[in-house]
Amino acid sequence: MNPLKPGSTIGILGGGQLGRMLSLAAAQLGFDVAIYTDEPDSPASRVSARTRVGNYLDEAALADFARHVDVVTTEFENVPAETAQALIAAGARVAPNPHALAVAQDRFDEKSYFTSAGIATPPFRAIGSQEDLDAAIAEIGAPAILKTRRFGYDGRGQIRIASAGDARGAYEKLGAPGILEGFCVFEREVSIIAARGWDGAIAFYDLNENEHAGGILSRTTLPARVGADVERAAQDAAKRVMEAFDYVGVLTIEFFVMPDGSLVANEMAPRVHNSGHWTIEGALTSQFEQHIRAVAGWPLGSTKRLAGVEMVNLIGEDAEAWPALAADADARLHLYGKRDTRAGRKMGHVTKLRF
Amino acid sequence: MNPLKPGSTIGILGGGQLGRMLSLAAAQLGFDVAIYTDEPDSPASRVSARTRVGNYLDEAALADFARHVDVVTTEFENVPAETAQALIAAGARVAPNPHALAVAQDRFDEKSYFTSAGIATPPFRAIGSQEDLDAAIAEIGAPAILKTRRFGYDGRGQIRIASAGDARGAYEKLGAPGILEGFCVFEREVSIIAARGWDGAIAFYDLNENEHAGGILSRTTLPARVGADVERAAQDAAKRVMEAFDYVGVLTIEFFVMPDGSLVANEMAPRVHNSGHWTIEGALTSQFEQHIRAVAGWPLGSTKRLAGVEMVNLIGEDAEAWPALAADADARLHLYGKRDTRAGRKMGHVTKLRF
Repeated sequence: MNPLKPGSTIGILGGGQLGRMLSLAAAQLGFDVAIYTDEPDSPASRVSARTRVGNYLDEAALADFARHVDVVTTEFENVPAETAQALIAAGARVAPNPHALAVAQDRFDEKSYFTSAGIATPPFRAIGSQEDLDAAIAEIGAPAILKTRRFGYDGRGQIRIASAGDARGAYEKLGAPGILEGFCVFEREVSIIAARGWDGAIAFYDLNENEHAGGILSRTTLPARVGADVERAAQDAAKRVMEAFDYVGVLTIEFFVMPDGSLVANEMAPRVHNSGHWTIEGALTSQFEQHIRAVAGWPLGSTKRLAGVEMVNLIGEDAEAWPALAADADARLHLYGKRDTRAGRKMGHVTKLRF
Repeated sequence: MNPLKPGSTIGILGGGQLGRMLSLAAAQLGFDVAIYTDEPDSPASRVSARTRVGNYLDEAALADFARHVDVVTTEFENVPAETAQALIAAGARVAPNPHALAVAQDRFDEKSYFTSAGIATPPFRAIGSQEDLDAAIAEIGAPAILKTRRFGYDGRGQIRIASAGDARGAYEKLGAPGILEGFCVFEREVSIIAARGWDGAIAFYDLNENEHAGGILSRTTLPARVGADVERAAQDAAKRVMEAFDYVGVLTIEFFVMPDGSLVANEMAPRVHNSGHWTIEGALTSQFEQHIRAVAGWPLGSTKRLAGVEMVNLIGEDAEAWPALAADADARLHLYGKRDTRAGRKMGHVTKLRF
């Protein structure tokens, strides 16, 4: 596609902090941003030119939105596939495409896809009943994790099965179609953030090393303590996924690094990712600008990393430490403008660079 | 003052590119921004939570604006002093204060102030008539520059007087109270960007070396080719000005560096400044974040410079080179979202860093 001229409007589905940071990056390049969200007062809306508050299944509202934007992208992966299809039916260009969104929305489809592409995953089984669960535990063994197939994030919709006994009643408790995943005894967690343009050009950021607490990313550091072969394997997996989906935009894959140095794919996110927030100050082009460049048909920017990185999330009440963080000359403080502090809610992050 | 909590609203008078970049910086810290502007569709409005379109002398509209923000600042120095006074009368905190704004608005008051503070300026005379002009030319000599006292920027409202003959009819042509300034045969132009908090804390950025074309800044490079004594003299001048005005926020002073290494103050801007745009990528804290920190009562951030800098303005049709600039991996492209390209209009800038 021809590159969108500055002054064009980027439509973003979703109004959270990822949309907010995408909108700030789009503004720097001279674009306007229109947000489509079901929240009346969202972090992204407050920094964007226009907001349409609507239901993600309201076809008339989506068609109207499509008519007033030059491309549509998304800041979260749980946008219904129907939303993207309604936008395309109304004439919008949508990136990434609905197929990639649909696969990433379903943990079973996602892992099945990884397997078909030759990318290792933990053992997994689709769970549609307690019988399925019992059979899967017998096959995969415990410990394992029972997750909803759809709409889980940041550790929500997950039940740990430490031993076969924990499986009793677990499917009913989950309350939705699930997936059982074998537990990986990994050495560390890493993620790769990659981007692909409409022209097929691909760029990779350096690998992120991640720590989670309670299922939520707590800390990302670079360089990751892995060898060049691990980095290449992650890049290769991201490239295969993006090319298979004819993907446009930033895509993230999270991996476990096993004791033997092999990578096991945990999940993919068809969007900018929390583990890439360091790129705002730590790379020549931030992941947010990169995503905007990709979906706008611009050339991808340099992903060169400028320094050693530590990014720490501010979860829930962590953000109340803002006075001390504001006084720390080394801390680059980011707050997302969320009105209410809740336990487990991502309120901001802090990046520290070591030059 | 107590630091404003994240989620507070920063009011900004003016909707241009400086307001736009201030708004982006405020958003990063979790603030909302409300713009007051007389333009119905401004670059800053499109990235801000709220906009009040109104006349700068509409006291009722200003009072309403004051009630809905936690502090008010300005992105351009030609806000009428009455505007700031009306806001203060309505209970708003305003930074910088109206006195500093008023002095910076009038080239004669500004230079008189510099003189009283022991800061060298070019020779200057107030011009209220053709007779004043003739007498001033006789005293100061030619070449000289006749400028309007108020509302000039980017070379507008200026008449060059190459020889005494050029003075004929020049006052009528100027059409407003003026100032005649003697011509300085300088070696180079520099500017200092400084910040002062409500608590009196002061921070300086490294000195900018500037090139102008047609009265408009075209290029800023760092480090400036001056000695440490010159840098200290610029810091000393900025400190004296800020302390005399009990100034809060970012302040810029432009100087000529004379062949003997002495500094001659050209003008001051009570705001963030074009010559400081490099700080977005090139300093630990951008001038925009620094200004927001200062007016919000937050501690000032580190002004540490990270690299060698070249910042080039995109004036008028320069911005049409955006496809090539977008493809240049070293160029950090900023476009301001202005709807119309006009000759002499600042459309964007490009920063290149040498690490």
